[in-house]
Amino acid sequence: MNKYSSPVRVAIAGATGYAGQELLSLLVRHPEVHLVAAMSSSPDSATRSMPRLARTWEGKIEPLSRAKLATDASFVFLAVPEAAAADLAPALLDAGVKVIDVSGAFRVRDAALRAKWYPATTILPEHVAYGLVEHNRDAITNASLVACPGCYPTAALLALLPLVQGGLVDVSRGVIIDAKSGISGAGRTASDRTHFSENHGSMSAYGVLGHRHVAEMEQELGTEVTFVPHLVPLDRGILETIYVRTTPGTTAAAIGECLGRAYQHAPFVRLTGDALPEIKHVAWTNFCDIGWKFDADSQRLVLISCLDNLVKGAAGQAVQNLNVICGFDERAGLR
Amino acid sequence: MNKYSSPVRVAIAGATGYAGQELLSLLVRHPEVHLVAAMSSSPDSATRSMPRLARTWEGKIEPLSRAKLATDASFVFLAVPEAAAADLAPALLDAGVKVIDVSGAFRVRDAALRAKWYPATTILPEHVAYGLVEHNRDAITNASLVACPGCYPTAALLALLPLVQGGLVDVSRGVIIDAKSGISGAGRTASDRTHFSENHGSMSAYGVLGHRHVAEMEQELGTEVTFVPHLVPLDRGILETIYVRTTPGTTAAAIGECLGRAYQHAPFVRLTGDALPEIKHVAWTNFCDIGWKFDADSQRLVLISCLDNLVKGAAGQAVQNLNVICGFDERAGLR
Amino acid sequence: MNKYSSPVRVAIAGATGYAGQELLSLLVRHPEVHLVAAMSSSPDSATRSMPRLARTWEGKIEPLSRAKLATDASFVFLAVPEAAAADLAPALLDAGVKVIDVSGAFRVRDAALRAKWYPATTILPEHVAYGLVEHNRDAITNASLVACPGCYPTAALLALLPLVQGGLVDVSRGVIIDAKSGISGAGRTASDRTHFSENHGSMSAYGVLGHRHVAEMEQELGTEVTFVPHLVPLDRGILETIYVRTTPGTTAAAIGECLGRAYQHAPFVRLTGDALPEIKHVAWTNFCDIGWKFDADSQRLVLISCLDNLVKGAAGQAVQNLNVICGFDERAGLR
Amino acid sequence: MNKYSSPVRVAIAGATGYAGQELLSLLVRHPEVHLVAAMSSSPDSATRSMPRLARTWEGKIEPLSRAKLATDASFVFLAVPEAAAADLAPALLDAGVKVIDVSGAFRVRDAALRAKWYPATTILPEHVAYGLVEHNRDAITNASLVACPGCYPTAALLALLPLVQGGLVDVSRGVIIDAKSGISGAGRTASDRTHFSENHGSMSAYGVLGHRHVAEMEQELGTEVTFVPHLVPLDRGILETIYVRTTPGTTAAAIGECLGRAYQHAPFVRLTGDALPEIKHVAWTNFCDIGWKFDADSQRLVLISCLDNLVKGAAGQAVQNLNVICGFDERAGLR
Repeated sequence: MNKYSSPVRVAIAGATGYAGQELLSLLVRHPEVHLVAAMSSSPDSATRSMPRLARTWEGKIEPLSRAKLATDASFVFLAVPEAAAADLAPALLDAGVKVIDVSGAFRVRDAALRAKWYPATTILPEHVAYGLVEHNRDAITNASLVACPGCYPTAALLALLPLVQGGLVDVSRGVIIDAKSGISGAGRTASDRTHFSENHGSMSAYGVLGHRHVAEMEQELGTEVTFVPHLVPLDRGILETIYVRTTPGTTAAAIGECLGRAYQHAPFVRLTGDALPEIKHVAWTNFCDIGWKFDADSQRLVLISCLDNLVKGAAGQAVQNLNVICGFDERAGLR
Repeated sequence: MNKYSSPVRVAIAGATGYAGQELLSLLVRHPEVHLVAAMSSSPDSATRSMPRLARTWEGKIEPLSRAKLATDASFVFLAVPEAAAADLAPALLDAGVKVIDVSGAFRVRDAALRAKWYPATTILPEHVAYGLVEHNRDAITNASLVACPGCYPTAALLALLPLVQGGLVDVSRGVIIDAKSGISGAGRTASDRTHFSENHGSMSAYGVLGHRHVAEMEQELGTEVTFVPHLVPLDRGILETIYVRTTPGTTAAAIGECLGRAYQHAPFVRLTGDALPEIKHVAWTNFCDIGWKFDADSQRLVLISCLDNLVKGAAGQAVQNLNVICGFDERAGLR
Repeated sequence: MNKYSSPVRVAIAGATGYAGQELLSLLVRHPEVHLVAAMSSSPDSATRSMPRLARTWEGKIEPLSRAKLATDASFVFLAVPEAAAADLAPALLDAGVKVIDVSGAFRVRDAALRAKWYPATTILPEHVAYGLVEHNRDAITNASLVACPGCYPTAALLALLPLVQGGLVDVSRGVIIDAKSGISGAGRTASDRTHFSENHGSMSAYGVLGHRHVAEMEQELGTEVTFVPHLVPLDRGILETIYVRTTPGTTAAAIGECLGRAYQHAPFVRLTGDALPEIKHVAWTNFCDIGWKFDADSQRLVLISCLDNLVKGAAGQAVQNLNVICGFDERAGLR
Repeated sequence: MNKYSSPVRVAIAGATGYAGQELLSLLVRHPEVHLVAAMSSSPDSATRSMPRLARTWEGKIEPLSRAKLATDASFVFLAVPEAAAADLAPALLDAGVKVIDVSGAFRVRDAALRAKWYPATTILPEHVAYGLVEHNRDAITNASLVACPGCYPTAALLALLPLVQGGLVDVSRGVIIDAKSGISGAGRTASDRTHFSENHGSMSAYGVLGHRHVAEMEQELGTEVTFVPHLVPLDRGILETIYVRTTPGTTAAAIGECLGRAYQHAPFVRLTGDALPEIKHVAWTNFCDIGWKFDADSQRLVLISCLDNLVKGAAGQAVQNLNVICGFDERAGLR
């Protein structure tokens, strides 16, 4: 039974960044949602229309109004920078509004680590849930604030959590995550980093051994992670290649069964086994595809995990969280 | 016989933009050139090295110094914005330095049109030559300042000038130039226009019926031109599709002969005839490839003209001008 | 009122090419459709699944069966090569099945032109309609066979038909269509033409003055067309730049009113006026976006028309035709 | 002193594949080389010209002639498939011709491993050297046949060999090489794998735990390697991310000194240290750029190694070997 009567009143803060645009695109088509406002703190883009959404959404992007968010919406999606989210969320929670955050501000529970990676978030509100629906459904259902996982951690955790929790991975031998992301993951801000000519025909690593998503992955996995992200010349999509060693005695069958059991009722995780996933199969969808190769002799396991960073890695996962909280079909608005 | 003893002392003003980087890359390998300075007015990039040129050039980009340019160099290449070029060139000419300009400031001779499109260039120095080597060799040889053609006009004029001047084109029926350019043509400044994600998988027209390169094309051709440039998702290269009607009685043979005669001694123009040119054959080279299809019944002639906007459309053509002025092999440093 | 009771039974012949895959993707999500079969004549890909559609469609691609198509489906979409379509369609029509063809076999009515461009199609069945919904709705409603327009003609005709039929274009001064298409338009067959490395960083014209889509454009417009298509390095999308002269006395207002009137009830044509359309705004949608620039002094009109070649240019338009024939909401399955 | 008088007579067998085209492009500009023939076993491409090389090379691709190779050339570059190379090389060696092979046929010395990965190469000729110039100069100088390293092993070995041989890497804790390659690495054969639309906007892993380049890397390093290659949507370039643990007591300074000493006289290896390399800095060059990040606490070392797969990874390295054998400047023809 639905806990919220349809349509629920939702608003977006930060609708002109790439995650925000994707949220807008999903929410205006969502059958159980009434979008009451799409706001942006960016003055130059506020009050503008979105050409891609013409005929689908006839609204305008409004300037950010904390008051309107607090009074008009039951749910607010935060797709603003971390500092703005850290500032906005407590006020909205006080007004009884539920918050679904994609900024990252509230993902890290350890105060010291949060101070390092998300310094603006000095206070962690109560009733925060880490919004990885496939592994945290109950907490999400009862949360006031959902901290949606980062794009990189979503792909990594969906592949690793069942195997690590099931004792199939020998974490003492290292967990290495080599991630490749499309440029939309670098955000909409124009810079040398996002200039077309600096990326076309090129590729680069960044944040080596020092990316803030590591904190979130280690928190959820309970073990050290070596993580290197790369920018590749495509727009949307992440592919992660994960290297681990299994515990002695682990069989190929056990790996398949462990993952199969974990996701037998998960509508958005597709296990492809030996047929390795590719970004083109998940782009523009909320699916995370996971395949793997296992060498029993050496106990080496290589997992490939793949998703659209703007959908399953951001906006789609946020909507999936809304669906779970409201008791809607988990796939509503996401097909 | 060489008019200048090798090596000539040259400097670059504006070495960090895309045309400037290309100039730097060509000049440090040029066998007849000694590069005395590579300067940039952009403070954040000054004094930096160029990773791509490591081991080939061990210098550093210096802050812009008008005094050093005037005293240390015999030739200065201007790859700065138009206003800076309009300001620098007269002082350098007064100091007896020859100037090869790729900014565009000095291309348009008509004062009213220059005021419209290049408003900072209030004075046109004496002894300016339009640097289309294949059609203006004598003037270039005697010039103090060479105004190198724009990237779009270079491709268009090389295809059209012989045919229009030879009376083979019925200009009264219109000259239409549909141009497609890689994103480096939009310059190095980071903006929505040059963001990777705004261009990947997309394409757009801009400056329709109002691009400043039209003035230059109409000046050289002596007739009205309809010009529409587009940005396409690749880094370097321009392909122009040119639509004209020929004058009555023009034959396929006459078209081939006219172009063949014009370029029989031109080392950088390749006529491909029926085998239409493609950007991949000219990228990273100083060639302009020109092919065409002619329908004798309807007198419709379609020309395809193709070059690398940063080489033949900018830096390479500038070096070609240097070679001509100095009496070097026209291909020196450009193979 | 719906003429067909929902769900209608449909099948796809040719489901593994790019247009066929797109049809499959649309039809499995269409609320009024039951997909009874997705077939392919390509033995190596038959019986395979589509990774992108996993969880959305659990079927398999079947080998082509004319008998099953004739007995199990009320509508068959033909996305096979022209010769196969020319062979299949009459048999299906005889069996009382309605046919929606995207192969091109039945677009050209003039026998001589059809013999030239579609030589396998020796007979044109009765009750054929040209499936440009926005301009041919009544004929489509009563047709047994819908010949869906080609991707290039769709973009060109939507921009030009109202203006030419309204007498605003001086066709005696020429109609020039410069088209740029993503590589999916070249089809799924692997060749030098479709190899990644032959297209990345490059661009080329092809079929200059000799592309078979010209026949279809001239048939519908009733005037000569100069058409040059190009391949650009992106996957899906067409942008056409159209050059015409208006008839004397035509005003900017008249142009806007003519187009506005033509498409006031068309859900999939968006007029963007001065804000020129870009491929990214229409990719993955059934929209055709049309913008334009007009120079009243010279009577030059440049139109930009833009669509996704696999959706509005093929599969989406085919589904739109189905919706119109069946009396469904024209947008069903296409949002 | 040069061991061979300039110019040396060289020929290419397999000049139409991507490595062969690159060889052709380098050798026609090489100042110490006379190209006596460029051959191809592919009948459809024989006798054709190369549009990109027009004006630079006026020859034609000839059909393959073993007799002509044996009589006219002092050096033959083999850029044919492995089986053809295995067949051609012995005959050429018998005729006293030196062979520089880029096919891979002669890289693996262990007979069992060679039977597995290069089954056509049943016999390994005498005087074979593994052509990694930076680490094998003496053997190359005296070889009759040079087996040029594969593109992936070149990047990996240049980064790892000094550190492993210097005892700075704890190989017992694993050596993981995550490689990303442009599509030209998949060769020129048209297939689903190399189709533009299958790669644009996508990325995929292949050959996981089973790529034949592993044999070559393990042979040279003397330890087990975990290797996963990926295809990324760009044309030319490889970037490898290498994960190892250092031996106890290893310092950041020791790593830098070890690599610096190894390459102090190597003209084509650039150590970038903390400033990580990117493909755009090495594309179209013979450089291999190597950077790294080290976490002393955990002894984790991440190396990034980067090169152009067609130049340093194939044709450029082959020319570098020629230069070494002949006693030319190692950089001749490669600047």
